[in-house]
Amino acid sequence: MIAIGVDLGGTNLRAAAFDGDVPIAQHKEPVGHDREPQAIVERVAQVIERVAGDVGGPIPAGVGIAAMLRDREGTVANSPHLRWRDVPFGALLRARLGDRFAASVYNDVNAVTWGETTAGAARGHRDVLAVYVGTGIGGGLVCDGRLVEGARNCAGEIGHVKVAWGDVAAPCMCGSRGCVEAYVGGSYVQRRIERELAGKARSRATFFARAEPVNPSHVDLAAADGDDWALELWTELGSLLAIAIGNALAITNPSCLVLGGGLLSRTPTLYELTVTALAVAAPAASLDGLVIEPAELGDDAGLVGAARLAINR
Amino acid sequence: MIAIGVDLGGTNLRAAAFDGDVPIAQHKEPVGHDREPQAIVERVAQVIERVAGDVGGPIPAGVGIAAMLRDREGTVANSPHLRWRDVPFGALLRARLGDRFAASVYNDVNAVTWGETTAGAARGHRDVLAVYVGTGIGGGLVCDGRLVEGARNCAGEIGHVKVAWGDVAAPCMCGSRGCVEAYVGGSYVQRRIERELAGKARSRATFFARAEPVNPSHVDLAAADGDDWALELWTELGSLLAIAIGNALAITNPSCLVLGGGLLSRTPTLYELTVTALAVAAPAASLDGLVIEPAELGDDAGLVGAARLAINR
Repeated sequence: MIAIGVDLGGTNLRAAAFDGDVPIAQHKEPVGHDREPQAIVERVAQVIERVAGDVGGPIPAGVGIAAMLRDREGTVANSPHLRWRDVPFGALLRARLGDRFAASVYNDVNAVTWGETTAGAARGHRDVLAVYVGTGIGGGLVCDGRLVEGARNCAGEIGHVKVAWGDVAAPCMCGSRGCVEAYVGGSYVQRRIERELAGKARSRATFFARAEPVNPSHVDLAAADGDDWALELWTELGSLLAIAIGNALAITNPSCLVLGGGLLSRTPTLYELTVTALAVAAPAASLDGLVIEPAELGDDAGLVGAARLAINR
Repeated sequence: MIAIGVDLGGTNLRAAAFDGDVPIAQHKEPVGHDREPQAIVERVAQVIERVAGDVGGPIPAGVGIAAMLRDREGTVANSPHLRWRDVPFGALLRARLGDRFAASVYNDVNAVTWGETTAGAARGHRDVLAVYVGTGIGGGLVCDGRLVEGARNCAGEIGHVKVAWGDVAAPCMCGSRGCVEAYVGGSYVQRRIERELAGKARSRATFFARAEPVNPSHVDLAAADGDDWALELWTELGSLLAIAIGNALAITNPSCLVLGGGLLSRTPTLYELTVTALAVAAPAASLDGLVIEPAELGDDAGLVGAARLAINR
């Protein structure tokens, strides 16, 4: 069966047509500047038609979108990346595509989670927690073989799990305080590195960076090298991330934890420190038999996942 | 259809036969001292046969047990109440009961959660988080209309979510530190009350207790009365409980949160302080449309839930 997966991110619009597991057509273009809903709907429809070629309908087409959805119809409640609020994206897309396609819309992290579960790092597992640490922190949840979207489509929001509270808690862009994203999300980590190195901190990370600004990859190299400041920072952040993940494991008891995302995939020392800290942060019962795997499919996970979700829906 | 629900707790063994929603026979007896597996299996089988009367089989019979299970076959990994480890309870019970009954075994909090979801406070909801604060703290999770048991049957372990870490974190009987149960679980709360009142704390709770030892109900009355010590203690504990629940809401995004248990049902001021603290502790998106309900079925929830789970399995 042919199915199409689309990944509508903050930077790129990607699409692929799959015949079973095999991609038979792919396309990628920048999202660009015109982010009006009608313009984006038209462009998503065009890439879907393009990768579909001359296949006859109805073709399942799933779109993963970097947005908070309001319902299962694909209404976008809020997308900072697209600067959308209350946009009936799914309805507009279905109206534009007509009967040849059966289009459905998913949160992008959910699509990625489903991709890793059905075709990637968590293949064969029926209970999965996936945690992605990039610019922000997102998560996805599979229970007993089914994607958990939640009552309002915002299950898996592990980035906004609290790891601090009261006056000392760091402010998060979500408007709340103490969210794990406000400590371990990539944009916060980058700012903290810059702030501390502009202050009193001295680290071999500046050596690894050479002429570049120091980024988390350099800090990771320094931590692996035994650098005091880098190790202390990474231990603190790895422990906080482990607390958030450990608490999610206590609630959901998966058999597989997938760890990925742009930050964590480039910081193997932070990854290891996080996994080590989990041994204390998670209940022993939830660690019993737990497999921890790095994400495997990279950028393709969302395409595979959205296509497979569209087949099921 | 006739189905039987059994609640095998630390104190009582209860059973009921249901014709649809209507209980047609009930029985209750103390668990007593002989807690050897064979003795308990025999007594559970006898109460099942007793409430079944002369109904013909196969009769679904669900047993909720205060234990951590290892699998869907009803193998008890650990039950402090029964002093069991690695007991194949489900297999023994099925062997004893024979073909007339289709017996299955569930964690007691999961059975209670399913009872409240299908016939109690969360009726009509497909996504439910239930939190019970009694001697300990337990939880249950329903996603998209299905009970989430987890890969190893220990989903919903909200009592062992961490709300503190490092040297200052309170030791928990589970062997870990900083679990919310080690702060807000009834036995810990009782000891803290006794310790603080034996020390410097002065409170109107002692007035409400008259000649009795001060318990959480007295502290709740004092807090409602504006007593400084009681309000401070309850605000601290309500906030910690709200952090643990808010983090679970972020992960699971239910439409209904059920709050119950022996402690929370007797401490309305602590209940209200917890609900108030949730407004800050949970992500705004997970509070959108969330209904918070006190548990409704009390001791019957586990019987109803176990019977209904047995019908589905």
